[in-house]
Amino acid sequence: MIQMTLIQIDNYGPWTVTPRPRTESDLQMLQANLFADLNNHFGNKKGLVFFTRFDNLLAISNGLDEEDHLRIQRSIRNRYPITISMGVGAAETPHEAQRLATIALQKEGGAQSSKRKEILAIDSLVSEEDSFVQAAHIDINSVTETLTDIESAFDTSFMVNKAQHYLMTKLIKKGALLFFIGGDNFMSPCNGLSEEEIKDMLVEIDEEIGIGLKAGIGRGKNAEDAAYMADIGLEEIRERDNEPWTWVVEKEY
Amino acid sequence: MIQMTLIQIDNYGPWTVTPRPRTESDLQMLQANLFADLNNHFGNKKGLVFFTRFDNLLAISNGLDEEDHLRIQRSIRNRYPITISMGVGAAETPHEAQRLATIALQKEGGAQSSKRKEILAIDSLVSEEDSFVQAAHIDINSVTETLTDIESAFDTSFMVNKAQHYLMTKLIKKGALLFFIGGDNFMSPCNGLSEEEIKDMLVEIDEEIGIGLKAGIGRGKNAEDAAYMADIGLEEIRERDNEPWTWVVEKEY
Amino acid sequence: MIQMTLIQIDNYGPWTVTPRPRTESDLQMLQANLFADLNNHFGNKKGLVFFTRFDNLLAISNGLDEEDHLRIQRSIRNRYPITISMGVGAAETPHEAQRLATIALQKEGGAQSSKRKEILAIDSLVSEEDSFVQAAHIDINSVTETLTDIESAFDTSFMVNKAQHYLMTKLIKKGALLFFIGGDNFMSPCNGLSEEEIKDMLVEIDEEIGIGLKAGIGRGKNAEDAAYMADIGLEEIRERDNEPWTWVVEKEY
Amino acid sequence: MIQMTLIQIDNYGPWTVTPRPRTESDLQMLQANLFADLNNHFGNKKGLVFFTRFDNLLAISNGLDEEDHLRIQRSIRNRYPITISMGVGAAETPHEAQRLATIALQKEGGAQSSKRKEILAIDSLVSEEDSFVQAAHIDINSVTETLTDIESAFDTSFMVNKAQHYLMTKLIKKGALLFFIGGDNFMSPCNGLSEEEIKDMLVEIDEEIGIGLKAGIGRGKNAEDAAYMADIGLEEIRERDNEPWTWVVEKEY
Ligand SMILES: Nc1nc2c(ncn2[C@@H]2O[C@H](COP(=O)(O)OP(=O)(O)OP(=O)(O)O)[C@@H](O)[C@H]2O)c(=O)[nH]1
Ligand SMILES: Nc1nc2c(ncn2[C@@H]2O[C@H](COP(=O)(O)OP(=O)(O)OP(=O)(O)O)[C@@H](O)[C@H]2O)c(=O)[nH]1
Ligand SMILES: Nc1nc2c(ncn2[C@@H]2O[C@H](COP(=O)(O)OP(=O)(O)OP(=O)(O)O)[C@@H](O)[C@H]2O)c(=O)[nH]1
Ligand SMILES: Nc1nc2c(ncn2[C@@H]2O[C@H](COP(=O)(O)OP(=O)(O)OP(=O)(O)O)[C@@H](O)[C@H]2O)c(=O)[nH]1
Ligand SMILES: [Ca+2]
Ligand SMILES: [Ca+2]
Ligand SMILES: [Ca+2]
Ligand SMILES: [Ca+2]
Repeated sequence: MIQMTLIQIDNYGPWTVTPRPRTESDLQMLQANLFADLNNHFGNKKGLVFFTRFDNLLAISNGLDEEDHLRIQRSIRNRYPITISMGVGAAETPHEAQRLATIALQKEGGAQSSKRKEILAIDSLVSEEDSFVQAAHIDINSVTETLTDIESAFDTSFMVNKAQHYLMTKLIKKGALLFFIGGDNFMSPCNGLSEEEIKDMLVEIDEEIGIGLKAGIGRGKNAEDAAYMADIGLEEIRERDNEPWTWVVEKEY
Repeated sequence: MIQMTLIQIDNYGPWTVTPRPRTESDLQMLQANLFADLNNHFGNKKGLVFFTRFDNLLAISNGLDEEDHLRIQRSIRNRYPITISMGVGAAETPHEAQRLATIALQKEGGAQSSKRKEILAIDSLVSEEDSFVQAAHIDINSVTETLTDIESAFDTSFMVNKAQHYLMTKLIKKGALLFFIGGDNFMSPCNGLSEEEIKDMLVEIDEEIGIGLKAGIGRGKNAEDAAYMADIGLEEIRERDNEPWTWVVEKEY
Repeated sequence: MIQMTLIQIDNYGPWTVTPRPRTESDLQMLQANLFADLNNHFGNKKGLVFFTRFDNLLAISNGLDEEDHLRIQRSIRNRYPITISMGVGAAETPHEAQRLATIALQKEGGAQSSKRKEILAIDSLVSEEDSFVQAAHIDINSVTETLTDIESAFDTSFMVNKAQHYLMTKLIKKGALLFFIGGDNFMSPCNGLSEEEIKDMLVEIDEEIGIGLKAGIGRGKNAEDAAYMADIGLEEIRERDNEPWTWVVEKEY
Repeated sequence: MIQMTLIQIDNYGPWTVTPRPRTESDLQMLQANLFADLNNHFGNKKGLVFFTRFDNLLAISNGLDEEDHLRIQRSIRNRYPITISMGVGAAETPHEAQRLATIALQKEGGAQSSKRKEILAIDSLVSEEDSFVQAAHIDINSVTETLTDIESAFDTSFMVNKAQHYLMTKLIKKGALLFFIGGDNFMSPCNGLSEEEIKDMLVEIDEEIGIGLKAGIGRGKNAEDAAYMADIGLEEIRERDNEPWTWVVEKEY
């Protein structure tokens, strides 16, 4: 089972324009610092945070219990002008886990309610024995040669976003998620998806929009191990000149 | 004229997997810290950086000259395990400006060339008199009520990404750019676009995918002023219950 | 028993002047960021880092094992232009613990040896049962009224430094340590010292240099708990108008 | 003339214990982040910030005008749970400059007044023509061999603190300041002091406590240039095997 945490900045929209709109570069710094900081906290426990919307972030949180979450809320409160609420859910698929996490938090009040503050709403936690994460690290083949070094920076980022949109559309139907992690890279928490299903999507996208992708698929007890195994999978594919579409590596404990 | 800077991490792909794949949460922190840091540097001079791909970032840089860029490169070199190269271009449209910036940098070597390091390739700079930035701050109407508070966090982020993909597709054809800036917000550097053209796109997207958008359009001598004016425009729209699609505010000096 | 970790930047002196002296404000940022970051890592495990010399930092590390230390080294390597080595020691007194930690690291090579890199030298670790930290949070009485609001900022900082020098001189003789933690505050890891001994020092300093101090003394299984108990002690003293010199609070588990 | 800025966190003491004492590692992070951030802001304009007391920081601010200071206050307010007030003064000696800066701020209310918030109190600013900074970078000879590699980490830091205390005591009498900048390094803003006077102090300290020091003395229009020249001076001394006590380098424009 995979455990996911939704992190939501409390009543953030109104704050950004009170008493008047705040400088955009400051907001970008605030959001990026918060994201980095959360990754430090979750990463210390072998979790992984995705920036998602920056005001709503999703994390793979297998290995983090209630106290861990409370300590993170406290640390943010002590160092930022904003506070965060969190919802936690565990399920067989990542989509279901984040849905449970979201519902748990929504029950406690709206994102822009001035009354809801620093809620920790736990729907469910994964026990150590049941803990399992499958993550696919998906990467564009030869992005440097075919895009970065010959197209304009924005056109390249447009292609990357296009790939993201197509990947999201397909993965969401299968109960999997997809996050952009920078460069030409995406991470898909995808417990329950078979290697075949993933490969089929990549083939379809290649046919539909001509973007060649590969996926290292990692399996482990937590996000850190699964992501690392996925990276090893990608390296295996690179060593075979991007011939295989996918490569699965499972962590042995 | 608008001036844009492309910031590219030197030879980053190989670094991320040498001697073996680096922990993903560390890479997320590194990228987010670099992004925040660049916004601090550019923001100090009234510029604005967009995360774009994180390894390739685009910035509106009106007001920053050669020395400013060199000082930023030095500060990054002194505090990060990686270095950055930059290209700078100025033009009537943002798309052309970033294209000139990209070409200038590409001429100096590829993104994954181990020989190219800390290049500053300036195609053109904007003089103070010619400096002009138009930026549209585009925002989804009532995202909190219609999505955040009732849909799952991932489904909401899927809708936000969908809006981004449609906006990008339309804006790129007009020489404008589009960047996600968090929440349900996008920023479009769009010198040369009329209010009418922007409104038409928002109407089209509403019809095509049922996502209601509004745009505050700001004009000023630099990114900070233009973005602030755009925010004021958004507030004007909000005060009229999201009735107008767009609102233009021009900074007076 | 208290466990202490010495964190040393590898071969840092030469790096600061290669190929030519690096901008001092950048070095200050680098050092402060590293210090903050280490506190995030150690703090996550209820440890506490003192800036000490910035290039050599001492931490109370009860609760952190070998893997925790290795993960911190990895995270720093992935995000900074420098690497760190560490020594770890455990003993009845803090001074002895840091001495063992230092010796363990010194055995592996000098601080400016270009060969020594990312060493983790563990002399000894504390088991959970033996884990015990006593920390005194020492604070100047009414610094705001008597100094900050009436003397010049530098003259006040001179007085704070003077207090530090006198405290250090006395504590070191008793096997205790002393660190400046900002404002008018000092933290003394002081396992083995009696409340009486601490009070006597404060009385002496008052007589010698006319600076009135108070000390909250906390006891717990780790730095976080001990420091929190010490803060509670300080509040007890404040509630009695700074009448008592010391106040001991012990955490109950 | 040298210009100095006093940066003071508003009403910080009470905040650290409300509603109950905040986790010490979080406070250390907050203070270190603020310090790093201020150095980024001041450093961008060739200024330099010293951590001083962390809740009261002193900066050499030649080159920063009123707007620069206001922008820094705004950026901190947008990203931290605390706000800052500042005082600015200019004078022939650093001590007098920080004294004027302190008085200007003190007039606006106490450091722990809940009414005083985000004050910018400017006593005086330096014009570009009058701008001049002299800074001595003072460093212990062979600290690595004689202390770091053979003594315990705390005993070494005790010696460094002792050197600081003796330096402060002597410099303050001559209208100069002294700040610890990490390692075995100190920076003394010292407009008005002659090379001879500085040398005499170093000789005295060597005789009194047996710590051998050297000083690179730099002169320039701002802190960055002066500090860089001082570093060049230190390198000159090192090339002569620490024979000379001092070395002056003046920046040519
Ligand atoms: N977040 C993250 N980004 C990575 C990682 N590895 C590479 N990247 C990013 O991907 C970009 C492109 O690098 P590569 O994928 O190695 O380059 P490529 O030209 O596509 O080469 P192939 O993938 O080998 O075909 C880099 O600039 C990074 O931004 C990783 O492990 N994590
Ligand atoms: N980067 C950035 N994000 C903002 C700004 N203002 C709001 N946001 C983001 O937008 C999210 C949603 O806030 P709003 O747009 O105010 O909420 P809404 O429910 O859509 O309300 P309306 O837009 O007024 O219809 C917030 O959580 C922020 O993440 C801004 O100025 N800059
Ligand atoms: N690191 C740290 N610093 C603190 C803490 N509490 C206060 N300070 C610092 O101490 C400074 C002075 O605050 P106080 O000690 O409350 O003020 P005071 O005027 O001396 O008042 P009394 O100590 O009550 O006599 C603050 O500005 C902070 O920098 C704490 O828990 N940790
Ligand atoms: N802030 C700062 N610290 C420095 C600088 N250069 C060196 N240091 C610090 O000083 C420490 C000791 O380095 P050195 O002074 O080169 O070593 P040393 O053994 O004393 O050698 P000599 O000074 O050449 O006799 C380093 O670990 C750094 O912390 C600098 O330019 N700025
Ligand atoms: Ca790739
Ligand atoms: Ca909105
Ligand atoms: Ca006090
Ligand atoms: Ca030295």
